[in-house]
Amino acid sequence: MTDRVKELLDLLVKGDRGGLARCITLLESRRPIDEADQISLLQACDDIIATRPGISRRVAFTGPPGVGKSSLINRYGLRLIRDGHRVAVLAIDPTSKRTGGSILGDKTRMADLSRHENAFIRPSATSGHLGGTAETTREAILVCEAAGYDRILVETVGVGQSEHDVSQVVDLVVFVTMARSGDGLQGIKRGILEMVDLVAVNKAEDDGHQAALNHARELGSALKLLQGAPAPACIPTSAISGLGVDELSDVIDRLLSELVDNGSLDEQRQNQRIQWFEMALNALLQRRIRDLPEWKTHHARLKDEVTDGTKTPYAAARELLERLAL
Amino acid sequence: MTDRVKELLDLLVKGDRGGLARCITLLESRRPIDEADQISLLQACDDIIATRPGISRRVAFTGPPGVGKSSLINRYGLRLIRDGHRVAVLAIDPTSKRTGGSILGDKTRMADLSRHENAFIRPSATSGHLGGTAETTREAILVCEAAGYDRILVETVGVGQSEHDVSQVVDLVVFVTMARSGDGLQGIKRGILEMVDLVAVNKAEDDGHQAALNHARELGSALKLLQGAPAPACIPTSAISGLGVDELSDVIDRLLSELVDNGSLDEQRQNQRIQWFEMALNALLQRRIRDLPEWKTHHARLKDEVTDGTKTPYAAARELLERLAL
Repeated sequence: MTDRVKELLDLLVKGDRGGLARCITLLESRRPIDEADQISLLQACDDIIATRPGISRRVAFTGPPGVGKSSLINRYGLRLIRDGHRVAVLAIDPTSKRTGGSILGDKTRMADLSRHENAFIRPSATSGHLGGTAETTREAILVCEAAGYDRILVETVGVGQSEHDVSQVVDLVVFVTMARSGDGLQGIKRGILEMVDLVAVNKAEDDGHQAALNHARELGSALKLLQGAPAPACIPTSAISGLGVDELSDVIDRLLSELVDNGSLDEQRQNQRIQWFEMALNALLQRRIRDLPEWKTHHARLKDEVTDGTKTPYAAARELLERLAL
Repeated sequence: MTDRVKELLDLLVKGDRGGLARCITLLESRRPIDEADQISLLQACDDIIATRPGISRRVAFTGPPGVGKSSLINRYGLRLIRDGHRVAVLAIDPTSKRTGGSILGDKTRMADLSRHENAFIRPSATSGHLGGTAETTREAILVCEAAGYDRILVETVGVGQSEHDVSQVVDLVVFVTMARSGDGLQGIKRGILEMVDLVAVNKAEDDGHQAALNHARELGSALKLLQGAPAPACIPTSAISGLGVDELSDVIDRLLSELVDNGSLDEQRQNQRIQWFEMALNALLQRRIRDLPEWKTHHARLKDEVTDGTKTPYAAARELLERLAL
């Protein structure tokens, strides 16, 4: 273990939030020189967590942009802290490549939470050293848990694939939406539905109060119809007034308890670890192969031949692997 | 080249639809014993196509279930045949693993087209020998083109990722939707929008006629607002009455001509070939590695150690690669 990793772990164990942030930054590095430190940091975090297993809970908040996910997490996070928890919020934005900036994990929308000593907020973790949002998030979750945070909240914009990815790294998925005219079931498409454990119909304040109540009721009926009982609960919430946040918290606790009691939580996490193993394997394999000198010699040439039509993509791929003696 | 491939190619060149179907079935095989034949078949198809380049056009029809994609393709396909084209319809269903059956490429909904000697319909191509819907479709497109079909229509259910995948293998994407109360822009989410070249608001018949007209107009305005001009055209269509099918066909032809004239079609196909190369590389690499004896010895053991928590996923992945001397 290098001095850098020792120093970072020391800070981590002391509960230093700056140290935790530096750990995540290290894990996000794509420089080959950082790889050994990344691995020993992850291993050390895993060892720390193994000394107090079964404590952490991971909950994702997903939904379309503009429905108030950050503000709702702010409220819910404060409630968790009142209950004696330490809360880490990780934001992953699968669309940030396109929009050029993160609309998630906005600290101004989590002002109360971000000021609290028992909270840690990491806006927009970008793709990590193994690539892919799922990997990044898994690793960030691990270091947060090693740092003593027992409630990990993952915020992500729902864009189809992202709900699927995030459901692979958390225990529970909360879908956040709001009542808007003509919106219907927008954002709750088939397939995504199956991954959602709970729905919050947010912005149930002022003029929007009645609309949110109606929307939650209609959504609840529709989900029951589509998914059959037991369908996910639909709870009207307001990050402004605090309406529904206690109910949301209670339902999340109840669902998590059920997962623990029937053994699903353990089973789910075991499956997630196996997935992580396979994905890490694939990512490392890609990296190793691309570092081989034969790769560097032939890949560019074959790519050119594919581009100008001299070789079919398939034949070129096969030739390259032959050159690698694979 | 084996006798089997020779026989299949012979049938293919003769325009035998049964032979074409057998080619696609061969490409879908995951048996290692079929790999050599798959490669020589693809190479031969590529050679055939190279003798008459630039003729084929590939158009995807995507959209939520139940909007009448198959029926619309039926109508549009007949129009293409009247114009002297030979039409192949390929259906890919990314949800079929879940639903256990295809709701696409339904031949009963393409009865007229399927009876025509200049049409070939392949319902629900499943994941191919390289895995992934994009690969399957690319390969199926290739053999259809080698068989002399110059208009390839790809039908897929829109579930977020699938529009992205299908946009990687075609020249143009048509989004099919319909007017439904409260639906708004459902199904046209941000991100997907950027891949859509044209929108058909289907089921504009009988009672639905006026609603489809309104919906197309509203959608057109919304798209202009969201995407800025020039936004994709929104055309009310009816697969029953035939309304709008000629306009749809004309707009598709115009868009394709523009792509040819400004060089985008060549550029796009070149990029798609490079993508195909990289994806084929990855898929073949995975297969080769998993066939190594060291892999077989250690993978299962390490997976067990990850499952029971003895090793972290990351450390286990790294160990396996060390065993492979990578």
